[in-house]
Amino acid sequence: MGSLPLDASLRPLDPEAFAGDSRAIVDFLAEYYRDVDKYPVRAADLEPGRLRKLLPEAAPEHGEPMEDILEDVRRDILPGLTHWQSPSFFAYFPMNGSAAGFAGEMLSAGLNVAPFVWVASPAAAELESVVVDWMGTLLGLPQRLLFSGGGGGVLQGSTCEAVVCTLAAARDRALARLGHESIVKLVVYASDQTHATFQKGARLVGIPPSNFRVIRTTSASGYGLTADDVRAAVDRDVARGLVPLYLCATVGTTGLGAVDPVRELGEEARRHGMWLHVDAAYAGSAAICPEFQGTLDGAELADSVSMNPHKWFLTNADCCCLWVASPGALTSALSTDPEYLKNVGTDGTGKPAAIDYKDWQISLSRRFRAIKLWVVLRRYGAVGLRAHIRRHVTTAKWFERTVAADERFEVVVPRKFSLVCFRLRERFAGDDAADELNRELLTAVNASGRAFVTHFVVDGKFVIRLAVGGAMTEMRHVMDVWELLQASADHVLRRYSY
Amino acid sequence: MGSLPLDASLRPLDPEAFAGDSRAIVDFLAEYYRDVDKYPVRAADLEPGRLRKLLPEAAPEHGEPMEDILEDVRRDILPGLTHWQSPSFFAYFPMNGSAAGFAGEMLSAGLNVAPFVWVASPAAAELESVVVDWMGTLLGLPQRLLFSGGGGGVLQGSTCEAVVCTLAAARDRALARLGHESIVKLVVYASDQTHATFQKGARLVGIPPSNFRVIRTTSASGYGLTADDVRAAVDRDVARGLVPLYLCATVGTTGLGAVDPVRELGEEARRHGMWLHVDAAYAGSAAICPEFQGTLDGAELADSVSMNPHKWFLTNADCCCLWVASPGALTSALSTDPEYLKNVGTDGTGKPAAIDYKDWQISLSRRFRAIKLWVVLRRYGAVGLRAHIRRHVTTAKWFERTVAADERFEVVVPRKFSLVCFRLRERFAGDDAADELNRELLTAVNASGRAFVTHFVVDGKFVIRLAVGGAMTEMRHVMDVWELLQASADHVLRRYSY
Repeated sequence: MGSLPLDASLRPLDPEAFAGDSRAIVDFLAEYYRDVDKYPVRAADLEPGRLRKLLPEAAPEHGEPMEDILEDVRRDILPGLTHWQSPSFFAYFPMNGSAAGFAGEMLSAGLNVAPFVWVASPAAAELESVVVDWMGTLLGLPQRLLFSGGGGGVLQGSTCEAVVCTLAAARDRALARLGHESIVKLVVYASDQTHATFQKGARLVGIPPSNFRVIRTTSASGYGLTADDVRAAVDRDVARGLVPLYLCATVGTTGLGAVDPVRELGEEARRHGMWLHVDAAYAGSAAICPEFQGTLDGAELADSVSMNPHKWFLTNADCCCLWVASPGALTSALSTDPEYLKNVGTDGTGKPAAIDYKDWQISLSRRFRAIKLWVVLRRYGAVGLRAHIRRHVTTAKWFERTVAADERFEVVVPRKFSLVCFRLRERFAGDDAADELNRELLTAVNASGRAFVTHFVVDGKFVIRLAVGGAMTEMRHVMDVWELLQASADHVLRRYSY
Repeated sequence: MGSLPLDASLRPLDPEAFAGDSRAIVDFLAEYYRDVDKYPVRAADLEPGRLRKLLPEAAPEHGEPMEDILEDVRRDILPGLTHWQSPSFFAYFPMNGSAAGFAGEMLSAGLNVAPFVWVASPAAAELESVVVDWMGTLLGLPQRLLFSGGGGGVLQGSTCEAVVCTLAAARDRALARLGHESIVKLVVYASDQTHATFQKGARLVGIPPSNFRVIRTTSASGYGLTADDVRAAVDRDVARGLVPLYLCATVGTTGLGAVDPVRELGEEARRHGMWLHVDAAYAGSAAICPEFQGTLDGAELADSVSMNPHKWFLTNADCCCLWVASPGALTSALSTDPEYLKNVGTDGTGKPAAIDYKDWQISLSRRFRAIKLWVVLRRYGAVGLRAHIRRHVTTAKWFERTVAADERFEVVVPRKFSLVCFRLRERFAGDDAADELNRELLTAVNASGRAFVTHFVVDGKFVIRLAVGGAMTEMRHVMDVWELLQASADHVLRRYSY
């Protein structure tokens, strides 16, 4: 079947041909997961242009069998990938997949519906509203952010999209009062630990780059943003005739896993009529465990909260939950109502309660992401997912303790979740050389192909980040990377010791 | 395996468990495609709140077997979906899937890599740059929009994202010259046929809503935007001290399938230093056939062009190609360079040629969409894909001719691609009643469950749109919907005839 020429009478969704091709991919991926720890974690072949040279200059004229295509994936593409599903991937934050996340993604891609307006797929829109309420409840979010409490949620592709949408909502609420020319007076606030895409988002919605306040954090607050510092910055801006618009708090920053104090920042934001967004992209997943829900304390003061199930929650990319206290503020900024999307013949069926999710996001078209998150929640259950989170936290705890016990290393900031930030101590090199030493250590580890870790710079110091969270990552993989780090440190330190 | 409780020792990517769950979904979807024409095309049960009532109030505590989950999909979710893959789905524009598109999506979701910076998955970034060049070449785009000619392309999730990114690029290019406070002077131009998301995008990037020029089109130009009308609008704005920023031309508008004259509009845009974007979301797919490439004539004058393989090109959602003549203009507006994304230890490998695609889009995180489009192109080949497009065009031609031959109906605007716009003639009802008549006809057809069509309003007239493009749609399905339309027309007209 797979080898027939398809040009003449393409039947692109013939069930038999579909099942044949799809089963070949299932087998291919099962084999990939079986062998993924045999690949260098970070792509071994990093020469730009390598793949382009291997591939033909144009698309083929005639269709090819799936087995040939898969052979090319194996030979040409896999060696050039960085393997995010490897159990020894500790870089950035995890983007872990799972059998359930993949099954959900298959259902989404296979049904291939576009629930942009209610009638375009009612059950898809409604499942989304149910599943975001389920997630919000699991995280212990306040009722006012859930549909059941007058707020509501939506699944977006990324935190960046969520931030752009809420920034636009806050901006338009302000400009409705002040007039559009006041856009140059609007000021947004974040810390020096806030994700870079916040500034990108603010710039996208037209806030002048000179109106981003990047507030410095220090080790004294664990690199969390303090309400005092926010107040000082806001007061300065207000005195200059500027308008405080939006404050972004982060629970689990990218660099260090720091936690901003949501309640204090919420009170500060309210005092100045600012929109408070809580970005819990990575660490939000941990809040399904009661012992981590304290990090979201004060979320009832937030206008919006987001977290990414596609990071640490076994939900294959992409999936970002955004909850808002006032759906009206969001839809005021994002609604369109062209004729071709009006629901003829479906009015009078209780339309007011129906959600047109196109008005909750940047794009019109959208995928059926809800079924993916729903399958993950159903297949593993809250108990299974909590066990998954706790397993990684326990592993990271072990790593932190072990690093701290080795006198050559220091833990740079106390671990909060499953991210450990550490470095070789300065006393093993001149002050100037310490960064170089750690940089060499990182390079050696990654070049080995046995693990992939990334870095951060805090207070001018180069630190190594180890983020535990892979679906296949077990204690032995973390023990392995520790062994690798020790051996690489030996090697690197030897060069500095004479 | 599937029924074991998973709470205790979740192994989310165990290859055996993965293969078991995934094969169950393949079988489920193959059965779905086999039976999809038995479901009412538009969701039968449109009562908001129906699904919420059927589902539990919270996520389950314990994991459940896949077979139970699929049983619930069958019972609770499928009846509430509008079936976009039904051969009798003629609404909006198609969003057709295919075995190859699905296989590509499985590879993307299964490998689950995030190629946001080069090192995070070099082969994924590079395959993307290759595949957008392949697509551009197939469409006959000018060299300057391809990497091979100094431009370049990126895969986004939707046209809306592409429009937001290019608007931001155009805006920042202008504001670098004029200063940020001039944002209130920037004017964007489109026609009354341009997709509503263009206005949404312009508003998102901070263009004042009062600076959107919606230029009226008429039947004289086939509802295409004329250069004369653009010039008149621009001259008025320039005289008022405003700054023309961006002109959006559409090849294949949503309402009527109209085509704006790209070359003339490009010349006009150049005259005023405006960014010209060509939105070929739907009809761009047709340009793989030489007989349709004329619609993109003049694209060498465009700053950017976009089209959606996820519409009519057998590439399951989501996938939008965006090509730009000046990648630097795009990345100037969208770049970020935080420490945690810097590529330590990979410099000196020719990094300048490597692409960090995060700087070509709104979000940081991104899916490996390139492999999906690549599998579609490989599996079906250009010959197969052209046959697919031509089959739909031929079918739509038959439908147009048949409707025109029935004296009760009129074709409202000549068909250009696979979209036919028609209505019951006015003489069968009083002028006021004609719209109501067609509205009733539409409602009757959709309520039957045997087909789903949507509508548009042009020159105050309510018209019915029939967009051919489903992966399973054959001539017999179009003949069926014509029969249904005739029978429904008989029924509706009978009520008006006395």
